[in-house]
Amino acid sequence: MGTKKDEKLVQEITSREVDFAKWYTDIVKKAELCDYSSVRGCMVLRPYGYAIWENIQRILDTTFKQLGHENVMMPLFIPESLLQREKEHVEGFAPEVAWVTMGGSEQLAERLCVRPTSETLFCEHYANVIHSYRDLPKLYNQWCSVVRWEKSTRPFLRTAEFLWQEGHTMHATPEEAIAETERMLDVYADFAEQQLAMPVIRGRKTDKEKFAGAEATYTIEAMMHDGKALQSGTSHYFGDGFARAFDITFADRDNQLRHPHQTSWGMSTRIIGGIIMTHGDDNGLVLPPAVAPIQVVILPIAFHKGGVLEAAQRVQEQLRAAGLRVKLDDSDATPGWKFSEYEMKGVPLRLEIGPRDLENESCVVVSRDNREKTVVPLSELTTRLPELLEAYRARLYESALKNREARTSTALTMAELMEQAKGNGFIKTMWCGDLACEETVKEKAGLTSRCMPFAQEHLSDVCPICGKPAKTMIIWGKAY
Amino acid sequence: MGTKKDEKLVQEITSREVDFAKWYTDIVKKAELCDYSSVRGCMVLRPYGYAIWENIQRILDTTFKQLGHENVMMPLFIPESLLQREKEHVEGFAPEVAWVTMGGSEQLAERLCVRPTSETLFCEHYANVIHSYRDLPKLYNQWCSVVRWEKSTRPFLRTAEFLWQEGHTMHATPEEAIAETERMLDVYADFAEQQLAMPVIRGRKTDKEKFAGAEATYTIEAMMHDGKALQSGTSHYFGDGFARAFDITFADRDNQLRHPHQTSWGMSTRIIGGIIMTHGDDNGLVLPPAVAPIQVVILPIAFHKGGVLEAAQRVQEQLRAAGLRVKLDDSDATPGWKFSEYEMKGVPLRLEIGPRDLENESCVVVSRDNREKTVVPLSELTTRLPELLEAYRARLYESALKNREARTSTALTMAELMEQAKGNGFIKTMWCGDLACEETVKEKAGLTSRCMPFAQEHLSDVCPICGKPAKTMIIWGKAY
Repeated sequence: MGTKKDEKLVQEITSREVDFAKWYTDIVKKAELCDYSSVRGCMVLRPYGYAIWENIQRILDTTFKQLGHENVMMPLFIPESLLQREKEHVEGFAPEVAWVTMGGSEQLAERLCVRPTSETLFCEHYANVIHSYRDLPKLYNQWCSVVRWEKSTRPFLRTAEFLWQEGHTMHATPEEAIAETERMLDVYADFAEQQLAMPVIRGRKTDKEKFAGAEATYTIEAMMHDGKALQSGTSHYFGDGFARAFDITFADRDNQLRHPHQTSWGMSTRIIGGIIMTHGDDNGLVLPPAVAPIQVVILPIAFHKGGVLEAAQRVQEQLRAAGLRVKLDDSDATPGWKFSEYEMKGVPLRLEIGPRDLENESCVVVSRDNREKTVVPLSELTTRLPELLEAYRARLYESALKNREARTSTALTMAELMEQAKGNGFIKTMWCGDLACEETVKEKAGLTSRCMPFAQEHLSDVCPICGKPAKTMIIWGKAY
Repeated sequence: MGTKKDEKLVQEITSREVDFAKWYTDIVKKAELCDYSSVRGCMVLRPYGYAIWENIQRILDTTFKQLGHENVMMPLFIPESLLQREKEHVEGFAPEVAWVTMGGSEQLAERLCVRPTSETLFCEHYANVIHSYRDLPKLYNQWCSVVRWEKSTRPFLRTAEFLWQEGHTMHATPEEAIAETERMLDVYADFAEQQLAMPVIRGRKTDKEKFAGAEATYTIEAMMHDGKALQSGTSHYFGDGFARAFDITFADRDNQLRHPHQTSWGMSTRIIGGIIMTHGDDNGLVLPPAVAPIQVVILPIAFHKGGVLEAAQRVQEQLRAAGLRVKLDDSDATPGWKFSEYEMKGVPLRLEIGPRDLENESCVVVSRDNREKTVVPLSELTTRLPELLEAYRARLYESALKNREARTSTALTMAELMEQAKGNGFIKTMWCGDLACEETVKEKAGLTSRCMPFAQEHLSDVCPICGKPAKTMIIWGKAY
């Protein structure tokens, strides 16, 4: 039964258009996703925020396992000498790791870093368990947290500690490893687009932006409501560089000793920041149904009148049995307070049921995004609600896609690039492939390369930065 | 289709009776549960070992949520000043924590310990979110790893890093908090007995053995095959000690500011060590069905003959649809090799199907524990296999209980206690409640107090150590 709740007014949040950064932190706080802690740059994931992550985990984990991956758990620490085995890798990560130097009251003989990523640990283990081509492929994944000593942090987007999964696989041939790298990027892209309603661009990172130690990094890049980019998932191909550094060999079918070829791929709690900034509005969070902790909130209206609460409970049972995540709020708070509360929390559908609805054997369903009301007969709920959720998801996707299209431009000259860089958004140009031009764009226009999209377009023949022949089309942007 | 597998002979493992410790590490290695790493005291959980943990997680997490608990994620680190807020707690844990002193190349102003347990972090957060009696109870849990800088380590049983869940709850009254402490101990006990087939003794720890900072620690104590004890899960009642130290208050119904009352409870990957040492035998691991990654392995015999492989595949599909975890091994390894391999891995049931079975429309099912063969008609598999699994589980439980009963004795005098302490096993005595007597037993007999069982027996009127009047019955043992 309902407990009397404070009739606190839901405070307004900052408007997106007024101050996007403030709007973001308002949502994180008011939707009860995170709390700050006294631990520099680390966040507390509150139940509602963590429940979103649990849904993300469940979907991805199921997909990984269907594709043959197995979960493992590597140690939290990496001895300094192990981190140093692969040269480019240690150079990339050493400046941003946390170091354990004492155990109890004793100084350690060798300091340990708290894993920023686990290639080195997986490689050490793979050296123990890979001997023959029959041991390949190895398709491992782990769910854990990693630590990167970031200077300035924001909840979900950049935190000293974050949760993620990291897949690490080993294959007999480069072709198989590259196919895995591509396959896992597709898994992320499909997840983002189909489950999170976030359109993404699939592409390859430049050498400057690729993962430390990788031969190639593939990425999915999403655009946030304000036009900035969010790198939302990456998949790396390593060739046999780590395998050589860690002396991992296998006897091939022809009895020759060979080094296996490696991939890794990861998606993190960052994606929750992406969900907020893609779909949220001035009333709060807007969650895609696949990861919403509550998909339908049932609000009985005037429920002290005969039969309303009982009807709401029956509806709840029915929807739960149909596999929906449902909450019935029978607290004494006012309907107005409840409307605001569940809008702030981004619940996709609100189902209102009152005495008059009962007479008509129907209820009113309100969508979070456009507040459109639909009268649904009680007898049709289990078929109509999934349809309404799917229509809502499709609208979120379309709306995000429209925003991206409106904020994407093409620059054929450096002058155009400079002009377009005044706002946020994706800028498409050709590129000669030289690091110097990439650095010029960073310095002069304040943009980073997001990716060389797999879906290439021929915009012109020359690099607009240096005028030399172009090798590829590339996308620039400001990024979180 | 099958890939040709090396016809490596399954090597014999050390017998339990010859060297129990060696037998244990042999199993951990040969059943592919763990690998060692270059990180001192930390283990690599391999796919088969981690899959057991995933099953444990799923069952416990479902139960926790049914009881109203919510998952959260606290930071990995605890600033030294935060750890020091509760005096007994820091004294208990400070000697065994790992300290982060550097971030990147900079010395930290305040060192951070890697969480050995998270009471302090939960309390800091609770101070932010608990204001009114309406905010109570708070029933939070987290799944994570913790680090304790142990001197000597053994896979699962004692490792520098281990995986666990830690529940942390806050309640308006002592009564509610104590009820929660008891309820969660019962959850652990029921899980151990019903799902893991491990009989346990429920009881309370002495002040000497209780958790640092707790008012009371409840425990479930299991007996391993060799007669030693394993503390398998604990539940702590804190009173309002931490709440006072962390200044957590709430306005009660009468508008008075009060401190809430707290519990915490945890179960860890240690329990996998308990499963190994309770049920395992000289042929390898013996897994309870509830957590076995593979419950039934299907071995087609002479499967190049007409229809055998197809029949095995049909059986697999049928059993999977019935909710069983099944593996069909159609590799070219010999049946003998496969028998040994799946016995080593503790798979509860082995289902053999060959040309003659097919003619009879039946198959042979062999139980892992007693190797008893049952002929089961193919048409009855989905009803008979769950029955065979349940009978197997019941046998595991009975066998463990019998072992415990055979190795439990009663001592009425110090001389009896000393005599019985020559072997392993539980020794029941009365106790006056004085720390001095507990320390005497430790020094002279090499035993620690396991618990004061909830199921008390009146063995005599006096403490056999000092002769003073007894206050309670207590159980002593040697422990992992």
